[in-house]
Amino acid sequence: MSCPFCDIVSGQLPASVVATTDRVLAFSDIHPVNPGHVLVVPAAHATGLEDLDPDVGAEMFRVAHRVAGALRRTDLRCEGVNLFLSDGEAAFQEVFHVHLHVIPRYRGDRFRLSSGRSRKPTARADLDDVAERIRERLGS
Amino acid sequence: MSCPFCDIVSGQLPASVVATTDRVLAFSDIHPVNPGHVLVVPAAHATGLEDLDPDVGAEMFRVAHRVAGALRRTDLRCEGVNLFLSDGEAAFQEVFHVHLHVIPRYRGDRFRLSSGRSRKPTARADLDDVAERIRERLGS
Ligand SMILES: [Zn+2]
Ligand SMILES: [Zn+2]
Repeated sequence: MSCPFCDIVSGQLPASVVATTDRVLAFSDIHPVNPGHVLVVPAAHATGLEDLDPDVGAEMFRVAHRVAGALRRTDLRCEGVNLFLSDGEAAFQEVFHVHLHVIPRYRGDRFRLSSGRSRKPTARADLDDVAERIRERLGS
Repeated sequence: MSCPFCDIVSGQLPASVVATTDRVLAFSDIHPVNPGHVLVVPAAHATGLEDLDPDVGAEMFRVAHRVAGALRRTDLRCEGVNLFLSDGEAAFQEVFHVHLHVIPRYRGDRFRLSSGRSRKPTARADLDDVAERIRERLGS
């Protein structure tokens, strides 16, 4: 049951570290979309959002936010930034230690999204219905 | 200089609200990738990550994390979740009030990514170099 990101946290695997806090580590993705692509992970193993401590999640976002700002100040090509997190295989998760991607973007790069979004807006009644179903499950 | 998300926050435009805090609002996307697609936005206008208060960003992530958990407990199709944020036109931002997408996913849906990631891992020396350039710009 080895986990490559736990092995990075423990120092058993090498990583090009960008930032660390007590609970979060940020390092270069070895298969970058573009140079400067960084992954932000919790130091304590969590598979996905369901077993991730909300405080640690918030800290992951803080670190990603700082890295995004830093990327724009480097001389790496960075005209924009995507933050991306895949929770579950159906959402394209491949390494099952939760991670937040910070991806520098520039016009003409090869990153593409095809979302299947409807051109016509969804009817308000349907949006209200869906929102209510989510609210019911939010808890306190 | 109208902003549709500011108009939602002020109540001038309708929205199907999923969650609110003092500083953050979550509501149904009117062009959902899949039913249950939610946007999390700061109540105070910020164009992108650069003018977003880090505390508010962390709170956006907390709300998105809670919404993701709720989505998995609804009867909406949700086998996985993507969190996605586009900062800047080069990163596919279309509404210039920063927003974090929470997208329920299921096998066989129409959402696709084509990232242009290299199959071969990038050389460690290059990853180290890039990481150092980012670290230099991180500040304190
Ligand atoms: Zn792990
Ligand atoms: Zn606005």
